[in-house]
Amino acid sequence: MPNSSDRALPGEALPKVDNPAALKALPEEQLPLLAENVRRTLIDSLSKTGGHLGPNLGVVELSIAMHRVFDTPRDQFVFDVSHQGYVHKMLTGRWDRIHTIRQYEGLNGFLLRTESEHDCYGAGHAGTALSAALGMAAARDQLGEDSHVVAVAGDAAFTCGPTFEALNNIAHTTKRFIVILNDNEWSIDRNVGAIAKYFHALQTSSAWEHLHQAAADFVERIAGKSMRDLAGKVERGAKNLLFPNVLFEKFGLRYYGPIDGHDIPVLIKTLEFLKEQEEPVLLHVITEKGRGYEPAMGNPMKFHGLGPYKTETGETPPGGQPTYSQLYGQTLGKYALEDEKVVAITAAMPNGTGLVEFQKVVPDRYYDVGIAEEHAALFACGMATRGLKPFLTIYSTFFQRAYDMAVHDIGIQNLPVRLCMDRAGLSGDDGPTHHGLFDIGYMRHVPNWVFMQPKDEDEFADMLWTMVHHDAGPAAIRYPRGAGTGATPKAAPQRLEIGKAEVVQEGTDVALIGLGNLFEMADQARERLEALGYSVALINPRWIKPLDAECLKRFASQCRVVCTLEDHVLHHGFGAAVIELLHDAGIHTPVERIGWPDEFVEHGKPEILREIHGITVEACVAKVCRHLPPAKREAKALELQQA
Amino acid sequence: MPNSSDRALPGEALPKVDNPAALKALPEEQLPLLAENVRRTLIDSLSKTGGHLGPNLGVVELSIAMHRVFDTPRDQFVFDVSHQGYVHKMLTGRWDRIHTIRQYEGLNGFLLRTESEHDCYGAGHAGTALSAALGMAAARDQLGEDSHVVAVAGDAAFTCGPTFEALNNIAHTTKRFIVILNDNEWSIDRNVGAIAKYFHALQTSSAWEHLHQAAADFVERIAGKSMRDLAGKVERGAKNLLFPNVLFEKFGLRYYGPIDGHDIPVLIKTLEFLKEQEEPVLLHVITEKGRGYEPAMGNPMKFHGLGPYKTETGETPPGGQPTYSQLYGQTLGKYALEDEKVVAITAAMPNGTGLVEFQKVVPDRYYDVGIAEEHAALFACGMATRGLKPFLTIYSTFFQRAYDMAVHDIGIQNLPVRLCMDRAGLSGDDGPTHHGLFDIGYMRHVPNWVFMQPKDEDEFADMLWTMVHHDAGPAAIRYPRGAGTGATPKAAPQRLEIGKAEVVQEGTDVALIGLGNLFEMADQARERLEALGYSVALINPRWIKPLDAECLKRFASQCRVVCTLEDHVLHHGFGAAVIELLHDAGIHTPVERIGWPDEFVEHGKPEILREIHGITVEACVAKVCRHLPPAKREAKALELQQA
Repeated sequence: MPNSSDRALPGEALPKVDNPAALKALPEEQLPLLAENVRRTLIDSLSKTGGHLGPNLGVVELSIAMHRVFDTPRDQFVFDVSHQGYVHKMLTGRWDRIHTIRQYEGLNGFLLRTESEHDCYGAGHAGTALSAALGMAAARDQLGEDSHVVAVAGDAAFTCGPTFEALNNIAHTTKRFIVILNDNEWSIDRNVGAIAKYFHALQTSSAWEHLHQAAADFVERIAGKSMRDLAGKVERGAKNLLFPNVLFEKFGLRYYGPIDGHDIPVLIKTLEFLKEQEEPVLLHVITEKGRGYEPAMGNPMKFHGLGPYKTETGETPPGGQPTYSQLYGQTLGKYALEDEKVVAITAAMPNGTGLVEFQKVVPDRYYDVGIAEEHAALFACGMATRGLKPFLTIYSTFFQRAYDMAVHDIGIQNLPVRLCMDRAGLSGDDGPTHHGLFDIGYMRHVPNWVFMQPKDEDEFADMLWTMVHHDAGPAAIRYPRGAGTGATPKAAPQRLEIGKAEVVQEGTDVALIGLGNLFEMADQARERLEALGYSVALINPRWIKPLDAECLKRFASQCRVVCTLEDHVLHHGFGAAVIELLHDAGIHTPVERIGWPDEFVEHGKPEILREIHGITVEACVAKVCRHLPPAKREAKALELQQA
Repeated sequence: MPNSSDRALPGEALPKVDNPAALKALPEEQLPLLAENVRRTLIDSLSKTGGHLGPNLGVVELSIAMHRVFDTPRDQFVFDVSHQGYVHKMLTGRWDRIHTIRQYEGLNGFLLRTESEHDCYGAGHAGTALSAALGMAAARDQLGEDSHVVAVAGDAAFTCGPTFEALNNIAHTTKRFIVILNDNEWSIDRNVGAIAKYFHALQTSSAWEHLHQAAADFVERIAGKSMRDLAGKVERGAKNLLFPNVLFEKFGLRYYGPIDGHDIPVLIKTLEFLKEQEEPVLLHVITEKGRGYEPAMGNPMKFHGLGPYKTETGETPPGGQPTYSQLYGQTLGKYALEDEKVVAITAAMPNGTGLVEFQKVVPDRYYDVGIAEEHAALFACGMATRGLKPFLTIYSTFFQRAYDMAVHDIGIQNLPVRLCMDRAGLSGDDGPTHHGLFDIGYMRHVPNWVFMQPKDEDEFADMLWTMVHHDAGPAAIRYPRGAGTGATPKAAPQRLEIGKAEVVQEGTDVALIGLGNLFEMADQARERLEALGYSVALINPRWIKPLDAECLKRFASQCRVVCTLEDHVLHHGFGAAVIELLHDAGIHTPVERIGWPDEFVEHGKPEILREIHGITVEACVAKVCRHLPPAKREAKALELQQA
C-alpha cells in the first residue's frame, strides 16, 4: 500500500467543496488536496464528537472520485451500513455540519433519506446495499430512465446472507449495475471465514494475473503496463488460487480490480470506464482503514468507531466503571471454567459484546461467525441439540435478523439456546437503526421462551448463572448499553427462581414496577412519592416472561395505581403485558406506563431523549399522582412547606 | 437420466425394513426392491393424505444409501426444509404410520425432534440445514466424539442467505462435515437466479471434466472408467465454464460429483469414501423429482406438494371456490393494468401466493427472487425509493425471515412497501412451522406501518385497492390460507378509510369484534346470543393498526362485555391491543378473547384444532355469557322453550 504523499505544504490553502457540482468544477490536480482537507476536517471534528473515523478516512478518495464521475441525486449511491458516509455527507452540502455528527439534532451517524436528497438509502445494519440498489436499478429499468446505481459494500458485507441473496439475482434482473467492493480486511473486528480468506488471497498474491483477458487489458489501459507486468512476477507464488474472480463471475458480475482505492486518477478513469458497461460489474478497491492518520492506521479496531480522542495522539480518556458488555465477557468466561458445556457465539462483535474477555479465558469455546446472525442462531441450535450450552450474544437490534430462528428453530424445538441481547433499550448516539426498543415486542409472544432483564450488574451475574443452569428450553436476557448502577457482583452468583419478581419494598398507594435499567428511575420516583406522603411499593420484576402473576395481582389489588417503567416501546412492551394480565384477572387498577412512543426515536444522548419523550422521574410522579387522593398529597406538601 | 428398471416382477414380495439395523442386514441386491416398495407405499399412501410426494420419490435411493452407510441416531442427518424426510421416517420406525402423515395426531409432514430420536433436527423453512449441522459438528468436536454429521440440502437452499453464511464458516470450524447437494433443479417452483443457472451448467455439460485430479480419480474408482472417459467428450462443448466446482472449493469444501442419485451401489460406495475424509466435503447428487411415478415426473410443480389424487393417473379433484391466493394474483394483475407503478415480488412462491396469475397479465412487472425473503424485502425497498409500488408477497411465517427489514429498512425509512402476508392464521396440515400465528405480534409495535385484515374476499379486493393508493408509508395485510366466505368482489373496488372499522350491527349488551377470517365466527356467535335475548353489536375492525379507537371506546362503553376473535396467538394479538386501548381510555368493560394459546399449535385440520383450543362459536358464547345478566338469558331461554 503506497503512503499518502499528497499533504499540502504548511500555509497552503486547501480546497473545500460541499456540493457535487463544485467538486466537478475543481481542477483534477486539486483533488488530492481536497482529500487532504476532508481528512483534516474529519480527524479534527471527530476528535470532539467521536464517530466512525477509520472507515471514513479509508473512503475519502473513493467518495471524491464517485462524486466526480457520477451525478447524485440523479444517480444513486447505496452505502452498505453507511457508517462510511461522512465524506459523502461533506461533499453533498453537509461539510459545515459535520461537527454535529451523532449529536442531538445534528447529522445522523448513518445516511438518512430525510437528511438529504443525496442520501437515497439509509442503513445501519450490514448487508443491505446490494439488494436495495438492485431494487433501484430494476425500478430505473421499469421507468425507462438511464441513471446509474452504485452499491458500495465493505468486505464484511460478504459474510451476510442477504448480500449473497442479492448476488444471486443481479445478472438476470438488470444490465447496468455497479458494485464497489471496498476491501479493507476489517469490518468492526477482523473478518472471519472463507470469504475473508478469499479476499485476502485476492489482495495479496495472484489477483492481477487471474483477471480474464478483457479485464487485464483494461488494467493495462487504466493503470499502465507496469502494473500488469507486476502480476506476472507475483503469479509464480500462487499455488492454490485458481481464477479467484470466478466467485463473482459465477454470479454473473464482471470482475475488475483490485485497484488502489487511494489513487484518485485511477479511480476516476476506472469509474468512467465502468459507467459505460452494459453488464453488471464489480470493482474491487483496496483501501486502508484510518488512512492518513497514524494512530488509526496502527489500531484499526479502536478507530473503527470511538468517542472523543486527542487529535495529536489518538488517545482516548480512560474508561469509567465496567460496562454490561465487559462484565458479560468476564462473567461468562468465569462460568465457562466451572461448566465445560458453556460455549459463546458472536456475530462479528467480540469487542462490542465483551466476548473478547471470554475468548481470553476459553479460546476453544469461542465462535465468531462473522456478520451472520441467522447462521449464528442456527449454529447455536445445532450445538444445543448435542447438549452444549450456547450463549448466543447479539445486540437487540441485530437479533431482528435472526427472528425466524427464534420462532422456527429455537422456539418450536424448545432448544436451550441462551440469547444474550446487548444494547437493549435506547442506544443513544447511533440513533434509530441501533436502538434496541422492540425486543420485548417481537419475543414475548413466542412460546417456550423465558425472558429476563436485570436491575443492576450484580443481578446480571445471577441471571447469567441462572441461564447456565436453565436446560429446559430457551432463555433470553436483555441488558443495556454502557454501565449500570455499578453494583459489583457478589463473590458467588445465585440462581434465581423463574418467574419470581423481587419485592423491594411493600406499599399500599402506588406500585412502581421498574424493569431492568429503569428500576433505578422507579426507585427515585419512590423517593419523591414518599416525600409527598404516599405509601409506595417498589418491585423489580426481573422476568418479562413468565410474569410473576401472583405478585403483580397482589400489588395491583392493594394499591390505587400501578406504574411500569421500561426502556422499550409501549406497544407490546412490558407494561402492556402487565395490563393484559391484570385485565384478565379482573383487576381494574389503573396502570400508568413509562416507555417509548410508537415512533422511531432519533439519535442523541439518552438523557436528552428521555427528557423529550417523558421517560423521567418527574413524568412518572406526575402520571401516578393523577390517580392519588390530593388530600394526602397536599397535606404532605403543606407539612413540607411548614417544616 | 436413466429410467428406473428395478421394478419387481408381479407377485414377487418386496422387502420391507423399518429400522436402520434391518436395512444394514438386507442383502445389497435387495436394496433396489426395497426402494421400489418405499415408492409404491408412498404413492399409494399419499394418494389418500396428500403430502410432498415428488421430493420424497426423488430421495428414495439416497435415503436408503445414507442409512446403509451411516448410523443414526449416533450419526446425524439434517434435512433442509425436511419435507423430503418421509423416506427417512419410513426407514426409522415409522413405515406403518406413514399413512397418518399430516393428519391430526399422525406423523408430522416435516422432521420433528419429538417424533423420533432419528430426527435430530426439525425444519420447515429452507436454508437452515448447513448451519444447524455445523453446530452439531462443532459440538461433536468439542465433546471429543467421532460421529458423522450429514446435511442434505436441495439446490434451492443455495438461494437462501443463511446457507451462504454457513458455507463461509465450515472450513475453519471443523474437519469432518458432509454436505449432500440434492440437485433436482426445482424448489417448489422452478429455481431462479445465478445459482440455479450454475447448477444447471454443472449438471448438463462439462462438470465431470472439471473435477480436480483427486476427484476425477475418485470418480473413476467408484463409477468406472467409462464415466470418466465420457467427460472428455463432453468437455469440448463447454466454453464458458471454468472450474465450476470452484464455488464450493472457494468456501473450503472439497467438491465431489455429480453422481446419479438413483444408483444405490454408486451412492453407497461414494458415501463410504466420504465418511473417511478428514476435510469438509460436498457431494453433488442428481435426482429426479417424482422419480418412478409418471404423473409426478411429468408435472414436478404440481407434485411437489399436493392433496389427495388418483393413484393411477395423478388426477386431483377439481378445485372449489377460488382461494385468497388465487384472488390475490388475479386482482393485483387487474390493478396493475390500471396503475403502471404496481410491481409484485415473490420469494419462490409464484403458485402458492397466486402471483402466477399476476405474471400472466404483466410479466415484466413480476419478480421471483428465489427463497430469499430478506433480499425480497430490500429489493422492494429499493423500488419504493424510486416511486414504484412494490407488492411484497410472502407467507406470514416466512416473513419472519425478513423481520429486520420490516423495522430497519421499511419502517425507519417509512417506505411505501406493500406487504401481503398469505397463510396468516392457522395453516393446518403443515403444522407449527407453517402456521402464521405471530405476525400481529411482531408487526404491530413497529412504527409507521398500517396493518389490516379483510373479513371476506370482497373486502380483500377493496383493501388491496386501498394499498395501491397508500403512498404515505408501509402497509401490510394478512389473509388466511384457502378460501373465505366466497363473497365475490364487486365490479369496482372501493378505497377504505385508514383506521375506520365497519360497524355491521349496533347493540348494547355484547360487542363482538371479529377480525378477518374470524368475522364469520363472530357473526355466528351474534346469532346465538340474539337467540338468547341479548342485544349484540357486531364489528368488523378491518384495521389492526391503527385501531379505530373511537368505535372501540363507544361499544366498550355501551356494552357489558366485549369479545374479540382472531386467528392469531393471544399474547401481543389483536385482542391484547384492544385491552390496552380501552385500559388507557379508562374503560373497564371486560374483554374476552378468542385466539390461540401461548404454545406451538400442532398440525391437523383447522376444524379439529379450533375445537381443541376453544376457537369456536360455543366458546365465544360461553365466555361472553359469564358477564351477562342471567335473567335475560333465562327469560329468553324459557320463552324459547315455551314456543
